Amino acid sequence: MGNNLLKGKKGIVFGALNEMSIAWKVAERVVEEGATITLSNTPIAVRMGTTNALAEKLNCQIIPADATSVEDLENVFKQSMEILGGKVDFVLHSIGMSPNVRKKRTYDDLDYSMLNTTLDISAISFHKMLQVAKKLDAINEWGSIVALTYIAAQRTMYGYNDMADAKAMLESIARSFGYIYGREHHVRVNTISQSPTMTTAGSGVKGFDSLVDFSERMSPLGNATADDCANYCVVMFSDLTKKVTMQNLFHDGGFSSMGMSFRAMEQYLKSFDGIKDKDGNIIYG
Amino acid sequence: MGNNLLKGKKGIVFGALNEMSIAWKVAERVVEEGATITLSNTPIAVRMGTTNALAEKLNCQIIPADATSVEDLENVFKQSMEILGGKVDFVLHSIGMSPNVRKKRTYDDLDYSMLNTTLDISAISFHKMLQVAKKLDAINEWGSIVALTYIAAQRTMYGYNDMADAKAMLESIARSFGYIYGREHHVRVNTISQSPTMTTAGSGVKGFDSLVDFSERMSPLGNATADDCANYCVVMFSDLTKKVTMQNLFHDGGFSSMGMSFRAMEQYLKSFDGIKDKDGNIIYG
Amino acid sequence: MGNNLLKGKKGIVFGALNEMSIAWKVAERVVEEGATITLSNTPIAVRMGTTNALAEKLNCQIIPADATSVEDLENVFKQSMEILGGKVDFVLHSIGMSPNVRKKRTYDDLDYSMLNTTLDISAISFHKMLQVAKKLDAINEWGSIVALTYIAAQRTMYGYNDMADAKAMLESIARSFGYIYGREHHVRVNTISQSPTMTTAGSGVKGFDSLVDFSERMSPLGNATADDCANYCVVMFSDLTKKVTMQNLFHDGGFSSMGMSFRAMEQYLKSFDGIKDKDGNIIYG
Amino acid sequence: MGNNLLKGKKGIVFGALNEMSIAWKVAERVVEEGATITLSNTPIAVRMGTTNALAEKLNCQIIPADATSVEDLENVFKQSMEILGGKVDFVLHSIGMSPNVRKKRTYDDLDYSMLNTTLDISAISFHKMLQVAKKLDAINEWGSIVALTYIAAQRTMYGYNDMADAKAMLESIARSFGYIYGREHHVRVNTISQSPTMTTAGSGVKGFDSLVDFSERMSPLGNATADDCANYCVVMFSDLTKKVTMQNLFHDGGFSSMGMSFRAMEQYLKSFDGIKDKDGNIIYG
Repeated sequence: MGNNLLKGKKGIVFGALNEMSIAWKVAERVVEEGATITLSNTPIAVRMGTTNALAEKLNCQIIPADATSVEDLENVFKQSMEILGGKVDFVLHSIGMSPNVRKKRTYDDLDYSMLNTTLDISAISFHKMLQVAKKLDAINEWGSIVALTYIAAQRTMYGYNDMADAKAMLESIARSFGYIYGREHHVRVNTISQSPTMTTAGSGVKGFDSLVDFSERMSPLGNATADDCANYCVVMFSDLTKKVTMQNLFHDGGFSSMGMSFRAMEQYLKSFDGIKDKDGNIIYG
Repeated sequence: MGNNLLKGKKGIVFGALNEMSIAWKVAERVVEEGATITLSNTPIAVRMGTTNALAEKLNCQIIPADATSVEDLENVFKQSMEILGGKVDFVLHSIGMSPNVRKKRTYDDLDYSMLNTTLDISAISFHKMLQVAKKLDAINEWGSIVALTYIAAQRTMYGYNDMADAKAMLESIARSFGYIYGREHHVRVNTISQSPTMTTAGSGVKGFDSLVDFSERMSPLGNATADDCANYCVVMFSDLTKKVTMQNLFHDGGFSSMGMSFRAMEQYLKSFDGIKDKDGNIIYG
Repeated sequence: MGNNLLKGKKGIVFGALNEMSIAWKVAERVVEEGATITLSNTPIAVRMGTTNALAEKLNCQIIPADATSVEDLENVFKQSMEILGGKVDFVLHSIGMSPNVRKKRTYDDLDYSMLNTTLDISAISFHKMLQVAKKLDAINEWGSIVALTYIAAQRTMYGYNDMADAKAMLESIARSFGYIYGREHHVRVNTISQSPTMTTAGSGVKGFDSLVDFSERMSPLGNATADDCANYCVVMFSDLTKKVTMQNLFHDGGFSSMGMSFRAMEQYLKSFDGIKDKDGNIIYG
Repeated sequence: MGNNLLKGKKGIVFGALNEMSIAWKVAERVVEEGATITLSNTPIAVRMGTTNALAEKLNCQIIPADATSVEDLENVFKQSMEILGGKVDFVLHSIGMSPNVRKKRTYDDLDYSMLNTTLDISAISFHKMLQVAKKLDAINEWGSIVALTYIAAQRTMYGYNDMADAKAMLESIARSFGYIYGREHHVRVNTISQSPTMTTAGSGVKGFDSLVDFSERMSPLGNATADDCANYCVVMFSDLTKKVTMQNLFHDGGFSSMGMSFRAMEQYLKSFDGIKDKDGNIIYG
């Protein structure tokens, strides 16, 4: 069904938890396009999640790893090279978690030890992945590395909390390391800034489905789905985007370039129905 | 009442139509801060508007000019230098108009002759102003020039129409000319991207008051008013911002850095009141 | 040799002048990927250029058109639909020209009639193309339209002159029309901001080869070539990027995210060789 | 000599080490404008530095504090309110340090424990400052908080290392907390992105003076100095910028909007002197 866009390429996909995960869809699609891959996720996720079903379906191996552990990451790259029979061509980083969000600590009442965990899991893990890969010389020339991010890195979304700062840092790491990896090995590093997506992670964020609704109405093409994102990742891993690096690529149906759409405003205005005067004009407080 | 921030400075304020105009407030504030100024507006606006009242109040002269006419602009700068007794220190460009908006032509049905007029009045007039000033050597070293713009230049607002393209071009002119005027005469050129403001011009835009309401709820500090904007202009004309140039400065209570505020979402969600299930959950179509 | 990424798709490529043209490479690549296309260029370019050779090679037809003429553009879309047997799936806009640049008018001495021509050819032509296409209902659902642009739209490059303002406007048009075309027909509109490329157009810009050199050393992956750009266009025309719209996509080997590279600075420092003290330290004026 | 712009205002200035420090200049200027302040710096810096001389000169008190310690920061705000006789109106955060830079660890060989320190000192300290201030209700309505940053947060500068990621996070914190502090207490939070400045901190960065030279030639107004920055801080602390929040304000003589200046290119081209052909044309490899 694919176009052989990744024929002969080897990759590692981090973060496929279950069928809703973007990483799950990516894994399926890259295999469909001819790649061979390994999967990685936290030991707990591997035990509790359905990652095994995916591995079976795609006939690939899972290498459990805590992405905050340099040792574990070394193991993932070493084993992947062994299993796949050579250096890797692409990597997906789809990892993020905030204990502050989980524990409902608001942004003006952060627990700083939790913030460290947020950063360690959601941003620094990306640097570790890149540094480990480079030290092991685990990525082929013109390889491609992608991390998933969200527009909260640029524009504050209430409830997104310290994940916004983690995503800002993640995107900066992509630039900083992208420069070095590019000049030395022509390896590309980019982030894809995806529409809010109804994954297990996304659902944890406060008021998330309202945001999805608003975002859907603001975006001329509607929100990008996990399936759409998998297609975009295929493109970014392919040889057709060899000169794209250090970019944050908005994949969001147009949301990032919208100030206000007719459709979102139409819905917004319904909220004032109860406060219209007798002529139907909205009474602004 | 002022702080003498513009003591001894000379300026020209373009675009003060009536008391609602931002340029009107700017004129008042810069005089309060010790500047002497001339005013300029279109001959029609001068005849029909209330600009005369302002001139009288501020004890300054009006030089009517069509801002799309190089000759008229030359006249404004020459006369201003005569009246004010020397070169000018600051200029405000608060000029914009779209016949397509006025004639309710939608953006996918533009009249191209009208588009030319939109660009000529709203963007190219700024280049003409700068080119004329430079050729006449009418601006003092470290002078400051500001044009007013709107975030539609970056993010599409339905109904803002071809003014978005004009504002994008206006901001580009500020950068392009800012480079040249800066390197040769240390003259700063910046744009201020102001909250939607209830001026005569603003009111013409489709659905403008809804936008003002949404913008107010999105901005943590609320919309910036015309009075606020006048203060910001004072700052940009003063010697305290000598090294700020080629910038587009958002003056909007935080709107430009917001993705979604609690307050805007709270209002938005009211719109779904009629489509809740019996447990009070919103039924998304 | 392709991957059938555009199998069955129909397209129009504007602006293929000769073998150096990016549009030329795009035409070749999209055909290789299974698309059928028509070419369009100005009547003079068609007569004088080598476009015929390309048409012959790709076995496709040329429809001459002045891209500033609504009538001519209507003709291109109508004829293309006839020739290709149906609506179009993608369009490339690779058109730009500044008489001010050609006549060596500096940016602080623009001829305003020439500026109008710059805008008309380099920016407004894109709006006309979109408006004509939409009125004729000439683009299929989920079609993709791309215009080529340059980073001078965001950051001033000496010598790029009024083309910077035209490109800023072009990118704004992509957003403004992208919103409307997206919400109504799911048609995507994006711009690709390409590295400086040694085309016939590029060579006209003052100091262009120095810029190419600097840009090459600043970009970790080096400048993106016309061939690279053709690949990126294929991707943007394919179904794999369906949710990307209203974006300005930097395709530049990382240049846009660089502040200073080691390699560019190394070269820059050589310039001071003559002004070192006896210990080899650079003597800063 | 001042304009009484900060008359009656109370502030805290973090990070004044010696006469080269931007914070030092800010402290002098805000006092000149009528403010009363306290100073804070690390205990070591206070002991070793010349901060005492400044405190004496400005007749204000120093409250030593490790900015990574919540307890210490609480102490600074509590004591400041006592000393100044009420809530604070403005705060300057001029704090940053990277052990990785100091120990000459390259960005692809980071020590992760040092990275944590970089983030803790250079970015998280800003969050702690804001959270502590808000919990203690230590800032007056419409107060203003500024942190200093650098364009490396957006564009990679070789040698700036993990400070780039720290600055990206710092700017994100300004937005995230700016939203909350704005909506609840109208407190503004902004960052000023300053030209490279020859401070004790700046001098530590690899190849810093070359960067200063290049930056100077790229910026039409030249680099902004520490004195210029102090003026800009005065403006941001004053009541004239009440509606500016969540912004990253470039204060750099135009650098951030430049792609290439004539002056920088002129210098760059000198580097090729040895590799010209007999006609004086540069021989590009």
